[in-house]
Amino acid sequence: KVVETSNNVSEDPLPSWNEGNTKTAIMDYVQDVTNETSENFIPEIDRIATFDNDGNLWSEQPAYFQLFFAIDRVKQLAPDYPEWKNTQPYQSILEDDLNTLMSFGEKGLLEIIMATHSGLSTEAFEKIVKDWLMVAKHPRFNKPYNELIYQPMLELLDYLRANNFKTFIVSGGGIEFMRPWVEDAYGIPKDQVVGSSIATEYDYNNGSPVIKRLPKIDFIDDKAGKPVGINRFIGRKPVFASGNSDGDLQMLQWTDSNRYKSFQLYLHHTDADREWAYDRDSHIGKLDQGLDEAREKGWTVINMKEDWKIIYPFQKSK
Amino acid sequence: KVVETSNNVSEDPLPSWNEGNTKTAIMDYVQDVTNETSENFIPEIDRIATFDNDGNLWSEQPAYFQLFFAIDRVKQLAPDYPEWKNTQPYQSILEDDLNTLMSFGEKGLLEIIMATHSGLSTEAFEKIVKDWLMVAKHPRFNKPYNELIYQPMLELLDYLRANNFKTFIVSGGGIEFMRPWVEDAYGIPKDQVVGSSIATEYDYNNGSPVIKRLPKIDFIDDKAGKPVGINRFIGRKPVFASGNSDGDLQMLQWTDSNRYKSFQLYLHHTDADREWAYDRDSHIGKLDQGLDEAREKGWTVINMKEDWKIIYPFQKSK
Ligand SMILES: [Ca+2]
Ligand SMILES: [Ca+2]
Repeated sequence: KVVETSNNVSEDPLPSWNEGNTKTAIMDYVQDVTNETSENFIPEIDRIATFDNDGNLWSEQPAYFQLFFAIDRVKQLAPDYPEWKNTQPYQSILEDDLNTLMSFGEKGLLEIIMATHSGLSTEAFEKIVKDWLMVAKHPRFNKPYNELIYQPMLELLDYLRANNFKTFIVSGGGIEFMRPWVEDAYGIPKDQVVGSSIATEYDYNNGSPVIKRLPKIDFIDDKAGKPVGINRFIGRKPVFASGNSDGDLQMLQWTDSNRYKSFQLYLHHTDADREWAYDRDSHIGKLDQGLDEAREKGWTVINMKEDWKIIYPFQKSK
Repeated sequence: KVVETSNNVSEDPLPSWNEGNTKTAIMDYVQDVTNETSENFIPEIDRIATFDNDGNLWSEQPAYFQLFFAIDRVKQLAPDYPEWKNTQPYQSILEDDLNTLMSFGEKGLLEIIMATHSGLSTEAFEKIVKDWLMVAKHPRFNKPYNELIYQPMLELLDYLRANNFKTFIVSGGGIEFMRPWVEDAYGIPKDQVVGSSIATEYDYNNGSPVIKRLPKIDFIDDKAGKPVGINRFIGRKPVFASGNSDGDLQMLQWTDSNRYKSFQLYLHHTDADREWAYDRDSHIGKLDQGLDEAREKGWTVINMKEDWKIIYPFQKSK
């Protein structure tokens, strides 16, 4: 009885996961590669686990949350830019016309990102992101965006860390958009976040130095950029990789080529009631080629509807 | 007696440092900022310590060790490039004429780096670096280069980590030249290494993916590049920074602007007998403006000759 009430190893490390093939595959893998007597044993220093963020650790519908941030910021800055009223893509935002905004495609979004994410110091930007998270609410759930993180994935991150894996985010999202909140949300320190970035510049600023954010893309951490970013920031091939879209395919392939036994995990959004259901035809988080390759190679695919008892931390029973 | 023989806190954590102002300043700082009752207490997550490498964690004379690596590699590759016999800067290397090589300045060195550090996969490059360290010997000490690391700095790194600082390398040297050996040498994992880099590219390679090293500079982690690199890789301002040249000045200024109590450490090479003595006029590791600013701002300056009992681990008494 004493043993049972203490935090002992027989406790389920993944309580929000339903029993089934997915949960079993994850736990079998971790138990195998951390077992010193197994031929698949992996030394601790090589236990690198990388996680995509959007649609993988938190939701990404009806649009990337970073886009909602950029939209809110355009509205906030608009009084200083009266010309935006008649200039696209800004006009569409000020008129709450998301369809028109989307019609400008990647080029339009890039312009919005540049206008809203640069021109200030890294310190000022961090504060703006934190302030936004305090007030902004998701349109469907009416919750702060950083509460729309996946409870089962939090448990998986903890479980891996308890087994001496080092957990990293490897996301197409902006690195400095993520860093202000991921430590609290996921227990992943800022220096273990890989993401897209804009160029920066050091300014001595008469003895009060700042790093200035410039309106210029530095690195896109997506698709083939993910293995490049992993190599640049981590310097070691992961043994465990987790994503939800075709943008993660190269990261999973790269991990799959590890000489150690590795694990590839795709999250398939199949739950329209509790979250969203989308895959091959989605504009956001398209999962098409990845789904085929996962089946072909025997990678593990989470069926959100079947495998997860709850989605978000606020749904935990008290 | 039992207490004294166990690894207890009263043991000197910096046994290779002579008693004096430098050692006292370091230990006073660490004890202060890790004391929960002190107004200068720093939470563990913010205890970021960054160390320059060349001339700071290992020696850098009579030339950067990475240049010796590049020279050896030019000689190794020369049979495949017969034109190098009559083409500078390669010719100077093949004729062991370092003075002529140096006369080509930064442009010549960059060409050598490109020719010797690119055109192969990251995995192949790592093996070449490791193989080189197994056979190459330093001209003065006749030891492998990775034995010419500073014993007092190893103790400082251990001491900081024992006090829950996270230790990083932030070096102008090549990130992929350092990563193969710094874990063993300094106990610093690959993902805590910031350095200069060349561009890379992911290649699926018919299912055996590689990351290819391209003949193109990606990032120079020196001078104003150091705060930029720190921001990019670490995402947090250090509280402790250690360097030995004017190339570290911006990193020390950046650290000095931390809202937490911070520590700036310069290593002054003053020991011509046991190591080398150089500062304001040196071509390598020039320390001029930094020395003035250290005095002006009260930063701590290590006097190698006075402060260090031994220089290298192989000088430890058995
Ligand atoms: Ca995603
Ligand atoms: Ca140096």
